[in-house]
Amino acid sequence: MPPLITLTTDFGLADEYVGVMKGVIATICPEARIIDLCHGITPQDIRQAALVLASSFRFFPAGSVHVVVVDPGVGTGRRIIVLDCVDHLFLAPDNGVVSLLIPAARRAHAVTAEEYFSKPVSATFHGRDIFAPVAARLACGTLPDRLGPPLAPADLCTLPLPHPTVKDGRLQGAVVHIDRFGNLITDIDRHAFSRFCNDRPDRVRITLNSWTIDGIRTTYGSVPPGEIVALMGSRDYLEIGINQGNAAKKMQIGLDTTVYLSI
Amino acid sequence: MPPLITLTTDFGLADEYVGVMKGVIATICPEARIIDLCHGITPQDIRQAALVLASSFRFFPAGSVHVVVVDPGVGTGRRIIVLDCVDHLFLAPDNGVVSLLIPAARRAHAVTAEEYFSKPVSATFHGRDIFAPVAARLACGTLPDRLGPPLAPADLCTLPLPHPTVKDGRLQGAVVHIDRFGNLITDIDRHAFSRFCNDRPDRVRITLNSWTIDGIRTTYGSVPPGEIVALMGSRDYLEIGINQGNAAKKMQIGLDTTVYLSI
Amino acid sequence: MPPLITLTTDFGLADEYVGVMKGVIATICPEARIIDLCHGITPQDIRQAALVLASSFRFFPAGSVHVVVVDPGVGTGRRIIVLDCVDHLFLAPDNGVVSLLIPAARRAHAVTAEEYFSKPVSATFHGRDIFAPVAARLACGTLPDRLGPPLAPADLCTLPLPHPTVKDGRLQGAVVHIDRFGNLITDIDRHAFSRFCNDRPDRVRITLNSWTIDGIRTTYGSVPPGEIVALMGSRDYLEIGINQGNAAKKMQIGLDTTVYLSI
Repeated sequence: MPPLITLTTDFGLADEYVGVMKGVIATICPEARIIDLCHGITPQDIRQAALVLASSFRFFPAGSVHVVVVDPGVGTGRRIIVLDCVDHLFLAPDNGVVSLLIPAARRAHAVTAEEYFSKPVSATFHGRDIFAPVAARLACGTLPDRLGPPLAPADLCTLPLPHPTVKDGRLQGAVVHIDRFGNLITDIDRHAFSRFCNDRPDRVRITLNSWTIDGIRTTYGSVPPGEIVALMGSRDYLEIGINQGNAAKKMQIGLDTTVYLSI
Repeated sequence: MPPLITLTTDFGLADEYVGVMKGVIATICPEARIIDLCHGITPQDIRQAALVLASSFRFFPAGSVHVVVVDPGVGTGRRIIVLDCVDHLFLAPDNGVVSLLIPAARRAHAVTAEEYFSKPVSATFHGRDIFAPVAARLACGTLPDRLGPPLAPADLCTLPLPHPTVKDGRLQGAVVHIDRFGNLITDIDRHAFSRFCNDRPDRVRITLNSWTIDGIRTTYGSVPPGEIVALMGSRDYLEIGINQGNAAKKMQIGLDTTVYLSI
Repeated sequence: MPPLITLTTDFGLADEYVGVMKGVIATICPEARIIDLCHGITPQDIRQAALVLASSFRFFPAGSVHVVVVDPGVGTGRRIIVLDCVDHLFLAPDNGVVSLLIPAARRAHAVTAEEYFSKPVSATFHGRDIFAPVAARLACGTLPDRLGPPLAPADLCTLPLPHPTVKDGRLQGAVVHIDRFGNLITDIDRHAFSRFCNDRPDRVRITLNSWTIDGIRTTYGSVPPGEIVALMGSRDYLEIGINQGNAAKKMQIGLDTTVYLSI
C-alpha cells in the first residue's frame, strides 16, 4: 500500500500553511496518503502536541510517518530529528514534542541532509521547506539513517511533563487538555488511578476548585443530562465532563487546574 | 474504483478525534478514500446532522458509506444501525440522525457483530472503536447483513423534525440552521413554498421578528450589497441572507426563530 | 500520477459545503486527489484569496487544477474563467481573484460549456454545480479550450491590489493579512524592501501606529519571547510578529493598518 503521512501542527486551518505542506509532499511523493491528525494544537503548546501524538499514533498503520510541526524555535539552532519507535517514524523538532515516545524508541537521527530540503530554506516556515520534503522522502522509502547522524536517546530534549503525585494521602494531578465538548482531560492515567483506588473506583472522591464528584462512571450517559460525571476517557486518562453539556464552561475550570483524588 | 467513506461528526477539528478515526480506517481498509462531509455539527445536535446528511448524500457516488457520529448516547444502550438507502450505506447511532432517509430505506440492520469492533471498546469513543472499523469493513465489501440482525424501519428511532404548517392563512416555519455566512436556513422546502404561493413567489411576504421581506429572488446579488434577500437556497429550502453581509448578526436572528409567510 | 485539485474558498469548515464539492468531484473523476489549500478566507475577501493563491500555487505539482470559490457575485452575470499559467490551471470567478497570475498567464477561457455543469444549476452554490464538476473534468483531461471561448488577458477583471509606495522618503505599505499566530503580514515584498533599504536592512525603522521596530531579523527566535520582531515571512513579504506571542492582539493592530519604513 502507499505510505501514510500524518500531520500534527499548531497552524490551524484558517491559513494556507497546511495546504502548502501537502502540496510539497504531493510534488515529491505523489502516491503518499496524507491524514490530518490535528492542526488545532494551541500555538507553541509542545505539551499538548506531545500528549496528542502519544495517545494517537498506535491507531495508524505500522510504517506511518508522523510529522509534528509545533516549533516555537523555528529558524534557531534547535535540531530536527527523526525517531523510529514501535514501527512508526516521527519527524519533529527536538523540543520535547516526542518526549513520551523516547522510552520506546529504537533509534534516532538528526535531520541534517540538506539535499532533501526545499531550497531556499526560509527561516520561518520549516514545515514547508524541511518537514514536508523530508517526510515525503521517508514515505517514498528513504531510510532515516540517510537523513543525518545517529543520536542517542539521552541526547534528545525531553519535556518536564506533569505527572500525578501522592501527597498527604491524596493523588494530585492537573487538567492538561480541554476538548471541543468542554471535557476536562487530566494527566491521571488509568494505571495511576487504579493503583491509588486499589480497584475500588466507587470509593474515590474527585475535587477541582470547589467542585466535588464522588465515584467514576463508564459513560457520560450514566448521569442525567446536565450533570457532572468523571470517567476514564478514550485517551485512557481521567476525564471530567457534563452529560450533553460543557464542563469547562459550566464549572469555570481552566487548563492546569489541580485535580485531587481522595478515598 | 476504491470505495468512498464520508464522515459527519460533532467532533470539530480542534482535537485529534477525526484524525484517529481515519487512522483506524486506513489500517483496516487502506484503499478507502475518506471525505470529511462536516465536523462542525453543534455538539449533540442530532437535527442539524440529519438535515446536513439528507441534503448532501446524493452528491456522492453510489456505493458510498456515510458515517455519522453525533452520538450523545455513546456507551449507553442506544443501538448502532446500518441503513441501505438509494444505493448508499449509512452507519449511525439509532438516535434519529437518519430520520429523513428512513422513508426511502431498502433495509436496515443492527450493528452487533463485535468481531468487527476494535478491542477493547472504550465507553466514550465509539467513533474510533466501532464506527471507524465497521465503516472500513463495509468499504472493503462486508455486506450489511453480516453486521447484525435485520431491523424493520418502524423499529428505528425517528426525530420529531419540525415541518412548516399553515395556520390562520400563514405558512409558519423556523430557522433550523445558520451557516458560516450568517445565512438563515429555514425548514420551508421548495415544495411547501410553491404550494403556499401558488407559484406566485413575488406575492409572498416573509416575516421574522420585526423584519419583513417582500418577494423572493434567485441570487444574493439581486439586491444591493448590505440588503436583505430571501431565496431558495442550495439545499432547496427557503433562506434569508444579506448580500455580502451576515444576516444572523445584522438582523439579530437566532436558531429556531419562527418564520411566517403570508400573501 | 492521478491529477491533483486544490480548493480555496471562503466556505469555512463549519458547514457541509466543501464536503459536498468533494463528493461531486469524486463522482465525476474518482481518481482525482483533492487538497484543501484554504477554506478560511474571510467571507467575500477576494484580495485575501488572491494573495494566498499567488504565494502558494507553485508548491503544488505542475498540472494541478486550482479551484477558487470566493464569489460574492454568484448567480449574477459575472463570468467564470479558466486560466492557464505556468503549467497550472486556475478555475475561478472573473472577479479579480486571479489578478496576480494574469501577467504570467498563457491563455484564458470563459467557462460557458453547460454540458459540463451539474443540472439543475442552483443560483447560489456554483461551487457545487459548476466549479466542482468543471474542475473534475479538467482533472480528468478535458482541455480548457473545450470549456468556452478564449479571452484576452486584458478582458479579465483585475483587482486594485495595494502596493507599497515611496512618499516623503518613507516606504508606505499596509497590513494585508493576520494569520492564526497573530502575525501581521504586509504587502511589502522582498524586492520593494531591498530596493528601499539598499540592502542595509539593519538600518530600517518600521512604524505601525505608535509602535516602532528597528531593523529586521531572520527568525522569530532572534528576539526573546514576548518581544516584537520584523522579518521577511515565508510568503516573501515583510511580516511583524511577537516571538511566541500574538502581535495583532498585543499591539492591537488590525487589517489595513498602514506600515511606514524609514531609514
